Amino acid sequence: MMKTSMMKDLNCDLPSTMNIIAIEKPGGPEVLQMQTRPMPYPGINEILIKVCAAGINRPDVFQRLGKYPPPIGAPDYPGLEVAGHIVKIGTSVTSHKVGDNVCALLSGGGYADYAIANPVTTLPIPSCLTYIEAAALPETVFTVWSNLFDIGRLVKDEWLLVHGGTSGIGTIAIQMAKAFGAKVIATAGSETKCQFCLKLGADYAVNYRTSDFVDACRSTTGQKGVNLILDMVGGSYTAKNHEAAAMDGRIIQIATLQGSKVEINLSQIMKKRLWHTGSTLRSRPDIEKQTIAKSVEKYIWPLIEKGLIRPVIDTVLPLSKAAKAHRLMEKSDHIGKIILSTES
Amino acid sequence: MMKTSMMKDLNCDLPSTMNIIAIEKPGGPEVLQMQTRPMPYPGINEILIKVCAAGINRPDVFQRLGKYPPPIGAPDYPGLEVAGHIVKIGTSVTSHKVGDNVCALLSGGGYADYAIANPVTTLPIPSCLTYIEAAALPETVFTVWSNLFDIGRLVKDEWLLVHGGTSGIGTIAIQMAKAFGAKVIATAGSETKCQFCLKLGADYAVNYRTSDFVDACRSTTGQKGVNLILDMVGGSYTAKNHEAAAMDGRIIQIATLQGSKVEINLSQIMKKRLWHTGSTLRSRPDIEKQTIAKSVEKYIWPLIEKGLIRPVIDTVLPLSKAAKAHRLMEKSDHIGKIILSTES
Repeated sequence: MMKTSMMKDLNCDLPSTMNIIAIEKPGGPEVLQMQTRPMPYPGINEILIKVCAAGINRPDVFQRLGKYPPPIGAPDYPGLEVAGHIVKIGTSVTSHKVGDNVCALLSGGGYADYAIANPVTTLPIPSCLTYIEAAALPETVFTVWSNLFDIGRLVKDEWLLVHGGTSGIGTIAIQMAKAFGAKVIATAGSETKCQFCLKLGADYAVNYRTSDFVDACRSTTGQKGVNLILDMVGGSYTAKNHEAAAMDGRIIQIATLQGSKVEINLSQIMKKRLWHTGSTLRSRPDIEKQTIAKSVEKYIWPLIEKGLIRPVIDTVLPLSKAAKAHRLMEKSDHIGKIILSTES
Repeated sequence: MMKTSMMKDLNCDLPSTMNIIAIEKPGGPEVLQMQTRPMPYPGINEILIKVCAAGINRPDVFQRLGKYPPPIGAPDYPGLEVAGHIVKIGTSVTSHKVGDNVCALLSGGGYADYAIANPVTTLPIPSCLTYIEAAALPETVFTVWSNLFDIGRLVKDEWLLVHGGTSGIGTIAIQMAKAFGAKVIATAGSETKCQFCLKLGADYAVNYRTSDFVDACRSTTGQKGVNLILDMVGGSYTAKNHEAAAMDGRIIQIATLQGSKVEINLSQIMKKRLWHTGSTLRSRPDIEKQTIAKSVEKYIWPLIEKGLIRPVIDTVLPLSKAAKAHRLMEKSDHIGKIILSTES
């Protein structure tokens, strides 16, 4: 009888090299270039995934600009989430098997034909979804779960304010919050985008280019303000978030697209007993990501199976067009996720 | 048989007027002037206390300066805490009786011979304490309990950073944190004050005039930072608090002596998953103050009875010297509380 480790490798007739999208040097989208790299080999507790689709995320843009170096041990090329099937597993991996259709949260290296994943952040693809749709899930669902529910303790009937309502994060946050009985106000940059937020279930949508979101939060909540704010903007939004928040309101920072050095008024925090907190997903230790993954599989996957939550896909481009994908991301006209596909 | 309401009033042969310390107009300590006012009459759910001692608090100074108006319904003259004995009670009050020795948290009006108190924030005086000592308790103990334990969730073996270690709040915070098994770093403005913090039980004391408290927090905690920060300074301390905090650290703002408009770096909040929050005691509804009072009586009063926590008194002055008391407070050379006494 063959050894398990041999069994696990048996059905893999893998090429010795693969295509990846490298960052040739920090810069604009044009620095993203296809390169050939050796096929990676999974460690004893790792999984090798044949990537069918890879999600584009805002941090990838910062990494390309040289402003967000990958963590130690991660590949030097971008990509925080993929969907595909398992082609090889380390000898200690018992939770997954070769052939499984999975999507995974990665510490990097998703813009590639193959990617190494950690079993604890690798989940089965919900049966109703394509690879393209599944690749849109890990980064957004993990981020939204962790921030709205673990950290933010959002509960039924509370008001959530989601900035960037049509971003990958925003579209999932609206749906997840509504699925758990919260009421949602979303901000977005055009009437079309606002209409889309409402279609996703938001109770109210504010076009931030023409209206003040603080006023909108007050009037929509009977002057009480919102209980939870999911903010990726920072900058001038910070003081306004504090104004828009209700007594005991929580403000959760997940990015600072408009800048991280901000002025706040501590009196506002004291008077309303606000809680300003935040988190980053990528830097969290595996044990914490595993906890999030387990909750996501338990509480969110069934809602996806039922069709109550669905990833929103804006554009699918081949892996070779990663530069174009980044241009789209930076233009910010998209609604939902931009996905790279390796299937031609 | 006499009616209860008559019984309750029977032993009170009260004068028709009393002395109070009024704020003649917003300004320096000299605007505090003794005036004669009619004896107040307790409402059906109120208590009239013969004030033996009244605590001075920093908010009284702000009220005197015209920067902290008393809440609606509160007397127009200052004083947030008193100790004395009950001379009259409203007909609905069943929790206390005439003659009880009590200390009380007030919404104002403590600088007086008599004061109206709410039964829910009126507690028996621990048997080992004088009126002077008891008058030093309500504002500090309620504030520290609520912020360190209710809001801050301080637990055994965590590191607490207390700014203003020799202030009324600081001296109680050090003792309460130590009594619950936390480790304490205190800041203070002189070597003498630092020595006093250590005497109260602080594990480390930083003279902020000669040393950087961020460095001290790092070196004392093995570079991990402090888990909880109780801050009444604000201003330039805010960004430094964020630097001094550990992963998942909580920063609790209870005042902003150095200013409330501050610049912070949201990246720091995100990377360390900090929680910046705060509270004010005076503005909280009675139901919340009652909850705090119950916890204080249950958990802190026994520790005072055992001598594990003791109010620190710096100076006692007669009520007529309220202006001098405010000068002392503003000079900030004191260690512990400044108390006004009506007993001559």
